[in-house]
Amino acid sequence: MALIVQKYGGTSVGTVERIQAVADKVIETKKQGHQVVVVVSAMSGETDRLLSLANNITQTPTPRELDVLLSTGEQATIALLSMALEEKGQAAVSYTGGQVHIRTDNEHNKARIVDIDGARVHKQLNDGKIVVIAGFQGVDEDGNITTLGRGGSDTTAVAMAAALKADECRIYTDVDGVYTADPRVVEDAQRLVSITYEEMLEMASLGSKVLQIRSVEFARKYNVNLRVLSSFKDGPGTLITDEDENMEAALISGIAHNKDEAKLTIVGVPDNPGIASKILGPIADANIEVDMIVQNVGVDNSTDFTFTVNRTDYDRALSILQKTAKSIKAKDVSGDNKIVKISVVGVGMRSHAGIASTMFKALADEGINIQMISTSEIKVSVVVAEKYLELGVRTLHTTFGLENGAITESNK
Amino acid sequence: MALIVQKYGGTSVGTVERIQAVADKVIETKKQGHQVVVVVSAMSGETDRLLSLANNITQTPTPRELDVLLSTGEQATIALLSMALEEKGQAAVSYTGGQVHIRTDNEHNKARIVDIDGARVHKQLNDGKIVVIAGFQGVDEDGNITTLGRGGSDTTAVAMAAALKADECRIYTDVDGVYTADPRVVEDAQRLVSITYEEMLEMASLGSKVLQIRSVEFARKYNVNLRVLSSFKDGPGTLITDEDENMEAALISGIAHNKDEAKLTIVGVPDNPGIASKILGPIADANIEVDMIVQNVGVDNSTDFTFTVNRTDYDRALSILQKTAKSIKAKDVSGDNKIVKISVVGVGMRSHAGIASTMFKALADEGINIQMISTSEIKVSVVVAEKYLELGVRTLHTTFGLENGAITESNK
Repeated sequence: MALIVQKYGGTSVGTVERIQAVADKVIETKKQGHQVVVVVSAMSGETDRLLSLANNITQTPTPRELDVLLSTGEQATIALLSMALEEKGQAAVSYTGGQVHIRTDNEHNKARIVDIDGARVHKQLNDGKIVVIAGFQGVDEDGNITTLGRGGSDTTAVAMAAALKADECRIYTDVDGVYTADPRVVEDAQRLVSITYEEMLEMASLGSKVLQIRSVEFARKYNVNLRVLSSFKDGPGTLITDEDENMEAALISGIAHNKDEAKLTIVGVPDNPGIASKILGPIADANIEVDMIVQNVGVDNSTDFTFTVNRTDYDRALSILQKTAKSIKAKDVSGDNKIVKISVVGVGMRSHAGIASTMFKALADEGINIQMISTSEIKVSVVVAEKYLELGVRTLHTTFGLENGAITESNK
Repeated sequence: MALIVQKYGGTSVGTVERIQAVADKVIETKKQGHQVVVVVSAMSGETDRLLSLANNITQTPTPRELDVLLSTGEQATIALLSMALEEKGQAAVSYTGGQVHIRTDNEHNKARIVDIDGARVHKQLNDGKIVVIAGFQGVDEDGNITTLGRGGSDTTAVAMAAALKADECRIYTDVDGVYTADPRVVEDAQRLVSITYEEMLEMASLGSKVLQIRSVEFARKYNVNLRVLSSFKDGPGTLITDEDENMEAALISGIAHNKDEAKLTIVGVPDNPGIASKILGPIADANIEVDMIVQNVGVDNSTDFTFTVNRTDYDRALSILQKTAKSIKAKDVSGDNKIVKISVVGVGMRSHAGIASTMFKALADEGINIQMISTSEIKVSVVVAEKYLELGVRTLHTTFGLENGAITESNK
């Protein structure tokens, strides 16, 4: 008998029929002899409905009250799923975040989990019940309702699995696992049997939207076995775990891409100490997140400075940069929001030289010009023109032999 | 400075605009120098929406889970009203039933309040905040969410007023007070300046739908000054309080009527001990509430037995009674669901003889036949054919001089 935490997102519980289908899946797992804890999100559309009510009252809702409002979405789902389970003859009990003492700090709308008391849940599981828990929410030490911010239900599930020392945390989504590349771009992309936390973190931060980064970080910290599966079709999904479980680490796990970025360059900056913070300070002050940063020192004691931001922040960032350019006497400012970032990810890189050069050569052979490069221990990212997205991803997928499934299998 | 508890029902908070109007009314009271606690219901329609989700899953939702589901309705309203108050520059804080320790027994869907801890509320009031509390809900001693059943928000408001030792509990409704008769029936019905708890209880149980009986009972028990006012127009409403405050008790406070009843008669029952329980036992077992009961003993050692039930239960009650008639060898069963109950209510009756005979004579003078009579210390009720509703109520309203306002004024 194992203890399994399952998490179903808003789409998976978006209608009464889907809630009933989730109940069937939960009961199936229970019948296999496992104890099951289920974490659910608000029904899809519900959070937007509540937000729109709030926004009709005020453009700046009190963060505390916004949490009181939004947390009702998950609370409704736990009640409905528990009813569905009971209707099918399976004893169940629902808990809000507060009721199972998911204690957070008091940063409303983006609270972080501090502690979970699993005792109440264990007691109900031992009584044979399914325990249904509201994702996304908790309470601070004064009992105020908090929410964890976007993707918070994944984090609740992983935190719950950690607190309960669950054997596995299963995140049900609308995809059936993590792929070697986006299957919409690469037709013969392969589902990975497993992947390490670090690779998943890179994949997530590079634009693969399968899992929230925070939940993966949490899983890594507490060593929770995390599995991504489809809500809608059966299959083993992809297991995210620590690399020790891999018999032989794959060279490359996958090719990720991100179309949400835009690039800004400030040219001819006098290369003095502190110039980077003068450029990026105003950007950070405007709450714009910067991703890649590249600086080239020129010959005439001036430098070019390029960075990428989220495409939605492009216009704001450009206008801030233009002001900065004047004040620091830079020559010019340019920008491009028709770019894409393509990344090769794999823990195997750590011990294999030459991945980067193989990647650059493959792209060059196709005539794809690389505009920026950024590397980490387990990934190499390049920025190229958006028009090369499909060609670039497919080329690299083939170059690293991901389409034949061999690497997927060795990655078991 | 007084401490005022205000309660707004679902219609009063049914839209974003109405929530904003409620915020204005609350702030107005605060600006008069008072501390204000607001109790709110779910936005009108919300409870039905949630019930329909539940009913699409199961016809017999688990009572515990139904409470988890329904309590989200009020929780959304407290957040929205608090936001509206803050948006208008008034500091506010919302609390669910659980957060202010509205502790109840564990009778889900119809829980009774056991205890309220007012400390947290007093602290926020002393900090100058408006405190917004979710009506209708509480928690049992294990922290499970409970709801108080229909009209529960009125009860929350009165209980809160009792716990906080508030100076007044104001219930805002869609009528502007308690009237000497239904103004839709009697054109010159007068608003009562005040009325005793007991009279209000009789009025409520006799069909005046202004206040929930339970909240009036609660107010009487804890001696809470209760005031009924309109959400939509200004005015002092009607104060419900103990009779000591009346300088001189009015003879009659008002004429109530109830169209929701139906009458059943079982004829020629052998008059043996225990026969009443044989007749009413199966009715009670079917969860049908009986209102008036009249039994006449005949000459031939047989008896006729008549009682009234809610009109919605008429068909069920009739078919149960037909079975009973066979088993106890009664002669016949008859029924009538075109009846109405008209009542004369007033604490003055206690010390004035002749109210009943004045009432019967006035009805007889109009040719209205009385089918059943029931009396209590402060009311006389009669059952008449439904077609006599308007004529009967108007006749009695005039007979007892309610239209000239004199009695209303003496009732101050």
